[in-house]
Amino acid sequence: MISNIIFIVKKGIEKYFKEKASLINRRLDGLLPDAGRYPSPLFKAMRYGVMSGGKRIRPITAIAVCGALGGKEKDVIDFASAIEMVHCYSLIHDDLPSMDNDDFRRGKPTCHRIFGEAIAILAGDALLNLAFETVMFSKSPKKEAAMKSLSLNAGLHGMVAGQCADIISENREVSRRELLFIHRNKTAALFSCACELGAIAASAGPRNTRKMKELGYNIGMSFQIADDLLDITGNEKEVGKKLRKDSSAGKNTYPSIFGIKTARRHFLKYSAAAAKIAESLKAKGSILKDITTFLTKRSA
Amino acid sequence: MISNIIFIVKKGIEKYFKEKASLINRRLDGLLPDAGRYPSPLFKAMRYGVMSGGKRIRPITAIAVCGALGGKEKDVIDFASAIEMVHCYSLIHDDLPSMDNDDFRRGKPTCHRIFGEAIAILAGDALLNLAFETVMFSKSPKKEAAMKSLSLNAGLHGMVAGQCADIISENREVSRRELLFIHRNKTAALFSCACELGAIAASAGPRNTRKMKELGYNIGMSFQIADDLLDITGNEKEVGKKLRKDSSAGKNTYPSIFGIKTARRHFLKYSAAAAKIAESLKAKGSILKDITTFLTKRSA
Repeated sequence: MISNIIFIVKKGIEKYFKEKASLINRRLDGLLPDAGRYPSPLFKAMRYGVMSGGKRIRPITAIAVCGALGGKEKDVIDFASAIEMVHCYSLIHDDLPSMDNDDFRRGKPTCHRIFGEAIAILAGDALLNLAFETVMFSKSPKKEAAMKSLSLNAGLHGMVAGQCADIISENREVSRRELLFIHRNKTAALFSCACELGAIAASAGPRNTRKMKELGYNIGMSFQIADDLLDITGNEKEVGKKLRKDSSAGKNTYPSIFGIKTARRHFLKYSAAAAKIAESLKAKGSILKDITTFLTKRSA
Repeated sequence: MISNIIFIVKKGIEKYFKEKASLINRRLDGLLPDAGRYPSPLFKAMRYGVMSGGKRIRPITAIAVCGALGGKEKDVIDFASAIEMVHCYSLIHDDLPSMDNDDFRRGKPTCHRIFGEAIAILAGDALLNLAFETVMFSKSPKKEAAMKSLSLNAGLHGMVAGQCADIISENREVSRRELLFIHRNKTAALFSCACELGAIAASAGPRNTRKMKELGYNIGMSFQIADDLLDITGNEKEVGKKLRKDSSAGKNTYPSIFGIKTARRHFLKYSAAAAKIAESLKAKGSILKDITTFLTKRSA
């Protein structure tokens, strides 16, 4: 039953998410330049785009993967922060009038509504740049592998390609193949990257690194399908955000192309695949499986 | 006398520029994805933004520096191409309606006029990303140092900060300090980076690398001041592009803030400093000094 986004939350998970989100927020705060520095609108806009809420799901996933593979938080925190910067830059650019034209995000005016379009574009550019800077200047001996993963997943082989495919698919019905391309690249690529960076930070071997990429991919796909399903079938009051947005914007969604029944079936398939991978790690005391359940079990 | 942009061109220089530009164009062509690949508007726009002319001054400078320090072309070509990608992405974003609102560049419609704003923004994002990818996936043993230089000079510590300072200074008179900040960051940072990457590619020691950064900085400053002077005092027919654009757009320029006389003096100062550094290398048969003269001696 798709009715709301009340997650099946275990008590430990809530605490874990809160703790790790505040860890990430502290690191992001340290990495972002002071808002008072010249030219201040740029730095204010960057901070606004990053520090105005957000669940920090991607970086938390990176931390959880790193932990499950025996890595330490300090090994992954910069990579995790870089992933979040890429996510936030993409939101700033996606919200622009020429893109999705959104006035609000997380209940607040979007970046360009506060700072104007020019500064919002530049703040996005600077955040993407800062993400790479953050990885490059981290103390990790694994930064080269991390840079490669981040650059491949964030750009024309990943997220940007997905965003472009999404834009050009508006107001026409796309094929299933195109829709899969959009979801894989626009959403799943960055989740997959988050998990890969977690594995890289933990110095995992190639087998486990591949496994974690796969885990992220499955989490990302189930996450996006759940989002699409909620947009169509959810209850605005329960979900806590404006729904029916995608369909009214002429966007293609998983249920609009595959049908609600198949969308639910695929959601379950990706969730189950993610859970299976998380379980297979057999990391004692690891919270990764619970997180996977948490992220994929939006009550769809 | 500032009257035109007929450079003082030595014959060898013209040939050198032509040769190296075509070398860079071939590499860029190889690095950019096929225009037919899905989603094709993204890749068409990226190619349009990069392959529609351009003198390739920055990457040619990188190649010349590398050569003067005993490095080979194959060591620097990927770094040089990355610099050009950053330059081209910045032009695509700068031309957007919310930024400089330019309809033409190099005599052709700007990227957003052909592909629309959304695709132009994404093409810029993808090019910045591809620049980092190009450095990271190059075979150079020096790519870490190159990544650090590129990320520092292209982003919030360099070019993007300069662009933002430029945007917020429109239609008000800035201080000399602000104007210097804009020119240093918007223009000189990327020239400085080009020279630094040339030195890095040639495995130069810290002293020569620092020298080359300084060379690029001086080239960049004289280059920008000459451009500002030409915009005010040049003859459109001789210069071959629309002039008086900056002043009519309410932009601050070197002569508008420092006065034409001082601007000319500073231009000469930066040019002389660049020439002195280029000479000091004493690289036999090196074309670097001639290039420095070529780049800084717009007949200002």
